[in-house]
Amino acid sequence: MNTKLFYFLAIIFLVMVACDSEKKEEKTLTRDAIENILGRKSVRKYLPKPIEKEKVETLLKAGMAAPSGKDVRPWELIVIDQREVLDSMAAALPYAKMLKEAPMAIVVCGDTTKSAYWYVDCSAVAQNILLAAEALELGAVWTATYPYPDRMEVVKRYTEIPEEIQSLCVIPVGYPAMPHSPKDKWNPAKVHYNKW
Amino acid sequence: MNTKLFYFLAIIFLVMVACDSEKKEEKTLTRDAIENILGRKSVRKYLPKPIEKEKVETLLKAGMAAPSGKDVRPWELIVIDQREVLDSMAAALPYAKMLKEAPMAIVVCGDTTKSAYWYVDCSAVAQNILLAAEALELGAVWTATYPYPDRMEVVKRYTEIPEEIQSLCVIPVGYPAMPHSPKDKWNPAKVHYNKW
Repeated sequence: MNTKLFYFLAIIFLVMVACDSEKKEEKTLTRDAIENILGRKSVRKYLPKPIEKEKVETLLKAGMAAPSGKDVRPWELIVIDQREVLDSMAAALPYAKMLKEAPMAIVVCGDTTKSAYWYVDCSAVAQNILLAAEALELGAVWTATYPYPDRMEVVKRYTEIPEEIQSLCVIPVGYPAMPHSPKDKWNPAKVHYNKW
Repeated sequence: MNTKLFYFLAIIFLVMVACDSEKKEEKTLTRDAIENILGRKSVRKYLPKPIEKEKVETLLKAGMAAPSGKDVRPWELIVIDQREVLDSMAAALPYAKMLKEAPMAIVVCGDTTKSAYWYVDCSAVAQNILLAAEALELGAVWTATYPYPDRMEVVKRYTEIPEEIQSLCVIPVGYPAMPHSPKDKWNPAKVHYNKW
């Protein structure tokens, strides 16, 4: 091999190594934050694949990173991963039939003794969980229980939460069964400047 | 210059160019989505620096990317950037005194004729705006107007929103005047599995 060819190959090799190490560094990231907010969508069909423990913990941590009025943190989170509980809830909740296929769900609850408007704080918790699921390439959807007394009663029956705890929503989570596109909901007519 | 030295310098140069182009690509990203959720904090002191138009639009788009019950999208967003309106609201709202220093604010409102629980959907909008602000290196904070009739009345007076529109919160936004650390609110005792 002549010297020129040797150095030429050395250049190619080093550039490849350098670029690859940069890419590996990127891989530890999940997704760009703004892209993730704009790209989030409701996912209602899941693969029969369990969710990794670390991902579940990230969803829960994301939920508890929400702000709350006077910082009272009125939230309580229930992870449902027992097949019979998921199936019972799917049967009893009219808008949560997809629990039948979901490997798990998170029920976002609030302590009514800690905050009279727990459902506002808990909505921020639910949104954080949905966004974290999107970032982790999971699919999720907000199925409301609050403000419907019959649905809230179903959750109470299956999770045995105490009287003062109420549920805001049940969020089924799973790996999406198919690709989804986000809806473009941007509507400049809903923006007002200073006065209506 | 001898041939070896020439190729050595060429290697160094090419590696530098390659790494730099990778870095530039990264620059178009804002922040990792999970890191952004966990790192978000309430910022109440701002620099007297206006917010770029594109950033304001990103905040508004992020807000409207929220989910809503039956997809009715009951939100309406008011951008306040007139000094006298910001100052008047700062004077009249007990927990929004920081509006006095903020270059702008976004008022998250809901159309009560479109949804009876507009404040749930609008809470997801507000959380998206807070997260987008964090990703854009802006500081923001949720100052509640709902469910306080007196505060909601103040917003009504200064923004002249019609009777059926109600405000959930006023979010002052600005470049942070100092660095802030997020609170660690993770509490595993608030996680329950299947049953309470």
